[in-house]
Amino acid sequence: MAVARVTYRIETAGDIGRMAEKIASDQSTGTFVPVPGETPDLKARCAARVSGIRMLDPHERPAFPQDAVPGGTYSRADVDIDFPLEVIGTDIAALMTIAFGGVFSVRGLSGVRIVGLALPPEFIRAHPGPAFGIAGSRRLTGVYGRPLIGSIIKPNLGLSAQDVGAVTRELVEAGVDFIKDDEKMMNPGYAPLADRVRAVMPVILDHEQKTGRKVMYAFGIASADPDTMMRHHDIVAEAGGNAAVIPINAVGHGGMAFLRKRSRLVLHAHRSGWDVLTRHPDLGFDFSVYQQIWRLLGVDQFQVNGIGAKYWEPDQSFLASFHACMTPMLDEADRALPVVGSGQWGGQAPETYARNGGSIDLLYLGGGGIMGHPGGPGAGVRAIRQSWEAAVSGVPLETYAREHPELAQSIAAFGKTGVS
Amino acid sequence: MAVARVTYRIETAGDIGRMAEKIASDQSTGTFVPVPGETPDLKARCAARVSGIRMLDPHERPAFPQDAVPGGTYSRADVDIDFPLEVIGTDIAALMTIAFGGVFSVRGLSGVRIVGLALPPEFIRAHPGPAFGIAGSRRLTGVYGRPLIGSIIKPNLGLSAQDVGAVTRELVEAGVDFIKDDEKMMNPGYAPLADRVRAVMPVILDHEQKTGRKVMYAFGIASADPDTMMRHHDIVAEAGGNAAVIPINAVGHGGMAFLRKRSRLVLHAHRSGWDVLTRHPDLGFDFSVYQQIWRLLGVDQFQVNGIGAKYWEPDQSFLASFHACMTPMLDEADRALPVVGSGQWGGQAPETYARNGGSIDLLYLGGGGIMGHPGGPGAGVRAIRQSWEAAVSGVPLETYAREHPELAQSIAAFGKTGVS
Repeated sequence: MAVARVTYRIETAGDIGRMAEKIASDQSTGTFVPVPGETPDLKARCAARVSGIRMLDPHERPAFPQDAVPGGTYSRADVDIDFPLEVIGTDIAALMTIAFGGVFSVRGLSGVRIVGLALPPEFIRAHPGPAFGIAGSRRLTGVYGRPLIGSIIKPNLGLSAQDVGAVTRELVEAGVDFIKDDEKMMNPGYAPLADRVRAVMPVILDHEQKTGRKVMYAFGIASADPDTMMRHHDIVAEAGGNAAVIPINAVGHGGMAFLRKRSRLVLHAHRSGWDVLTRHPDLGFDFSVYQQIWRLLGVDQFQVNGIGAKYWEPDQSFLASFHACMTPMLDEADRALPVVGSGQWGGQAPETYARNGGSIDLLYLGGGGIMGHPGGPGAGVRAIRQSWEAAVSGVPLETYAREHPELAQSIAAFGKTGVS
Repeated sequence: MAVARVTYRIETAGDIGRMAEKIASDQSTGTFVPVPGETPDLKARCAARVSGIRMLDPHERPAFPQDAVPGGTYSRADVDIDFPLEVIGTDIAALMTIAFGGVFSVRGLSGVRIVGLALPPEFIRAHPGPAFGIAGSRRLTGVYGRPLIGSIIKPNLGLSAQDVGAVTRELVEAGVDFIKDDEKMMNPGYAPLADRVRAVMPVILDHEQKTGRKVMYAFGIASADPDTMMRHHDIVAEAGGNAAVIPINAVGHGGMAFLRKRSRLVLHAHRSGWDVLTRHPDLGFDFSVYQQIWRLLGVDQFQVNGIGAKYWEPDQSFLASFHACMTPMLDEADRALPVVGSGQWGGQAPETYARNGGSIDLLYLGGGGIMGHPGGPGAGVRAIRQSWEAAVSGVPLETYAREHPELAQSIAAFGKTGVS
């Protein structure tokens, strides 16, 4: 019988084995009291089962501070629990509620983090997955053999539609492959989406006519109301746009599922709010788990920070996220293009390439490294391309910079301090 | 100018005032570097502003353990930040992404919890709110002057549709006002929703014919796909059902918004997964913030645990949640009926009533206290009603039990050990 295997990293002042059994029971057929209807046959078909326990070093302090016990130590283990597909079915709402939701409420657990999810093919096949993914992102931009290079409209918020059009023109002329609205930009009164589309798309289409290359612009179409989001989608698609930024946590599974079924756009996921679910190392979720759900729902491009990001996230966590997006669930088409951003100016390219498994399948987002380049945005884009050429050919950046003045300028401007 | 005020409880080894300013800037017009377009005029219209800082006692340890600094202490404060409506608009996805999402990623914050949200009337009025709420829940069940008393189908999962019908009959005959599917029960192959509706609704309608009282049955209609959820909604509504259980985090804002616009059912919210956002006292969200969003989206009934719950949540947290649901945003119609559950058998009624502000506007869910009552489920329901009569009239339970044998039996059976 097919099962979904969920791995929980649990922590308790009590007994690990008993806690594992309690989770398996509470999350499936069990309740606090034995009830007459919970027959052996029902349990055999429907009960979740503990299929593995791997002990970890104990902790001296509990992850939830209120769960401290005097003189306590906190045993830790990775616990695998198998949920029969008979019970979960193939609906993500059921998976979330049965396997993920309840565990965080269990008394006596002083910490719990969901660190693994192995879904059976029957579950995966029930979902659309990315419509474009890596191959579609390359096809639409015509970029092969190197990372896509993109930028973000700045300031985040407050620009008029006309100003957004002007920044777009500058970035398009600089040679970027991709531009996005800030994830916080949706449909404000001072720059409604329809006006931004009217200001931006002629620039994109004009450039396409001249060069044969269509820059992908991801518009902020999101709304908590799927009908509104779909209206926004249509405005973009009808104007010839081909991408959208979706702050996935703000629209939720329902918003994403609704959009994916009807969408003609590349769906670029921003994780805003994700950190609350992952930043404490002993609580919440690993990205490897979270991203599977959103890829099933149709994310094409997934923001994952980068080496030396400006946020809290350490490099190792970024690299694990990158790897997760690039790992097929069933096949290569279900991968999401990793979007590498935050404080990137090209200087991180060699380390990114060396540590990501030698992949150039990524969208590299530069903000300050492009707009703040001493030679202007065009030089900024060329510098980032050069840094990736150096990285892929294994030539140190400084060496490559001898023949590539834009890269040399970037190193001089950002090499010591970053782009901030 | 109208603003949304968000209160962040922040913790940092650095300077509180500088951190507050950084959050206000990053979450609105700012980026890591000053950019030419961020003009004074743009800032005046669109920038978020720190409007209050109230220092709290420092902590010796950081909430995020990796943010420990040698010999550090961690300053704490409640920081109010005002976001102009000009920037946020009235979309919940924008509110989430601008005011809530990014703050958890800020480097240098060793902890952050969103503890306050004051939305302007313009924002609130843009949303439907509950279609039924407290008044509608009373009207549909015909219960006035006391709490609604409800129960849950057990075992949670695994029963055939026929078995669900049989348990329903037992509960209906016992005199409950409300029955619900477990939040984990949606549309499994062994008991599809359509079959459960066919097994349950004749029992409900038959009882209504005989007694004039229609028991409210909340069916598990949820799906991560709003179209599927809506099909499930229609199955219930067309069979004469009047309520649905929605695991709100699993369907997300989009799923809830989509459903609310089209729904004819009372929407009973289960918070499964919420604990990961609130259990660590220095991270995540207060329920007072979270529940506002979901009430705007249309939650009619909100599960909030209860006194002496079986989960981790302390009584004080339950009481705060109860109070939050009962606090009007604009007027009384936008309140959600608090659903008091988890380990409830009636014994907690006096304390619930004394500490909830003397309110009987609640749905009191008994599982084991009803099904496991020594005199049978009917006696269990009568015992719970009696416990509330005692609570409201200020008579100690033991005194009231002298004249009320079902309550006396409950006290004997559950008084020492609870219902587990």
